[in-house]
Amino acid sequence: MENPLLGTSNFVTGPNLPIGVFDSGVGGLTVFKAIQKSLPRENIIYYGDTAHLPYGSKSPQTLKKFSLKIGKFLESQKIKLLVVACNSASSVAIPLLRRNLKVPVLGVIEPGAKLAAQRTSRGRIGVIGTEGTIASQVYPKRLTQFRRGVRVFSVACPLFVPLVEEGFWRGAITEAIARRYLAPLKKWRPDTLILGCTHYPLLKKVISERVGRKVVLVDSGEAAAEEVSKILQRKKLLRKNGRGSYKFYASDAPTKFKKLAHKLLGLSMKRVWVQRFD
Amino acid sequence: MENPLLGTSNFVTGPNLPIGVFDSGVGGLTVFKAIQKSLPRENIIYYGDTAHLPYGSKSPQTLKKFSLKIGKFLESQKIKLLVVACNSASSVAIPLLRRNLKVPVLGVIEPGAKLAAQRTSRGRIGVIGTEGTIASQVYPKRLTQFRRGVRVFSVACPLFVPLVEEGFWRGAITEAIARRYLAPLKKWRPDTLILGCTHYPLLKKVISERVGRKVVLVDSGEAAAEEVSKILQRKKLLRKNGRGSYKFYASDAPTKFKKLAHKLLGLSMKRVWVQRFD
Repeated sequence: MENPLLGTSNFVTGPNLPIGVFDSGVGGLTVFKAIQKSLPRENIIYYGDTAHLPYGSKSPQTLKKFSLKIGKFLESQKIKLLVVACNSASSVAIPLLRRNLKVPVLGVIEPGAKLAAQRTSRGRIGVIGTEGTIASQVYPKRLTQFRRGVRVFSVACPLFVPLVEEGFWRGAITEAIARRYLAPLKKWRPDTLILGCTHYPLLKKVISERVGRKVVLVDSGEAAAEEVSKILQRKKLLRKNGRGSYKFYASDAPTKFKKLAHKLLGLSMKRVWVQRFD
Repeated sequence: MENPLLGTSNFVTGPNLPIGVFDSGVGGLTVFKAIQKSLPRENIIYYGDTAHLPYGSKSPQTLKKFSLKIGKFLESQKIKLLVVACNSASSVAIPLLRRNLKVPVLGVIEPGAKLAAQRTSRGRIGVIGTEGTIASQVYPKRLTQFRRGVRVFSVACPLFVPLVEEGFWRGAITEAIARRYLAPLKKWRPDTLILGCTHYPLLKKVISERVGRKVVLVDSGEAAAEEVSKILQRKKLLRKNGRGSYKFYASDAPTKFKKLAHKLLGLSMKRVWVQRFD
């Protein structure tokens, strides 16, 4: 370990430090749950940027600014790893975060693309996500790197996030919207479909029925959770003892955040702390 | 006129100064259009806070902060009147803006409530709006002030704004969502319905079919435009000559803003300027 009085960096890490996870709202909690399930000993700090939600229709410049502020805040809370649990932010802010933070940074795009490239049988991969993620073309680029010759069909589904955030995660309305968005994709006959937004696993049932049950769904958040485990192992930062403890922050409307987390994901939070930026 | 070197205030006004109008996005453009139509000589500066859109589900504290920053910015652009063209912001930020700005400030709630209180035949008034507006209870409070004994039925319709912003302003999906939100209201048999969100006039046809065509719809933005005319007249600030010129600002994604303004409202903008805060 560096001597903070001598070294240029005073970054100190260790297995007992928490993992930092952030998203625009409750969507990233699907990633939180996946990490919690596979690594129950880990401490986690979660930040939901509900004051700026949703991220999906915002510009790269704005998302970079929000992501850097949150990254700096979580770093100040002494985390050992930062997980960007949002595809829209991951699609534009990862290089910036890596340049400006001392902790390792993991997004959800790379793990999701890698897993889909491994799982595809006929090389026909569908991607659904927010406007921002789809416009960034980040999935087609990554998929081609991981597996040459793969074909990709992308569809933006901007209403899926508000549907989830308003609790419409099943029923006739959600099915009708899913039909509208997914009909062209279904016709294209993908063998694998990347859920390229951390809210979408909450619509898994509706999406699967719509594209056909044989299509393999890849949850980018679940893939990221697997990657977290590998990184911590490689860096010898896995926590060995005890049960993980959790702390939740939101930048606005903590009560709504808490209720939604319970309703959608069955998560009980004692308290949601409010932390705003300016 | 005060001498700015002597007086404590250097606020200078006049008929040729523009009217400032702001909203979270394109919704407030319905108010812009109403002002443009009734006062074609007036210059207008419009600010769409697309970086923080939507306002409807954000907390009062956050909305106050955003509103004050935008109000200060528009005041620095030398306006003669500020119109808060958003019900959610109007429901929480008007007193704060009045305390902190030198220009007169008008929201959309008071004019809408006044007009509905005048128009109701049987004193049964429905109000639809975002979560924030409905939770603030500001319409029932105002309506009771303007007309005693009036009865009010309020419904939050949080998906209406994303539907409009994504271009789903008619068709089977929007009708199904409208049916879901408005069924209990229809059963209650209002004679008048306040469209308590500046996005909702864009769904007027669907809403009217759903609640019944005999129900009088009150557009809070249109009501505000009438009030603008009265205030300017009273303060002798009406512009007498020429045709109005317009300037549009957005805090993010100006191209999307421009396209949506054209698609939804038939507005052609030469340019949308980007103005962020922080």
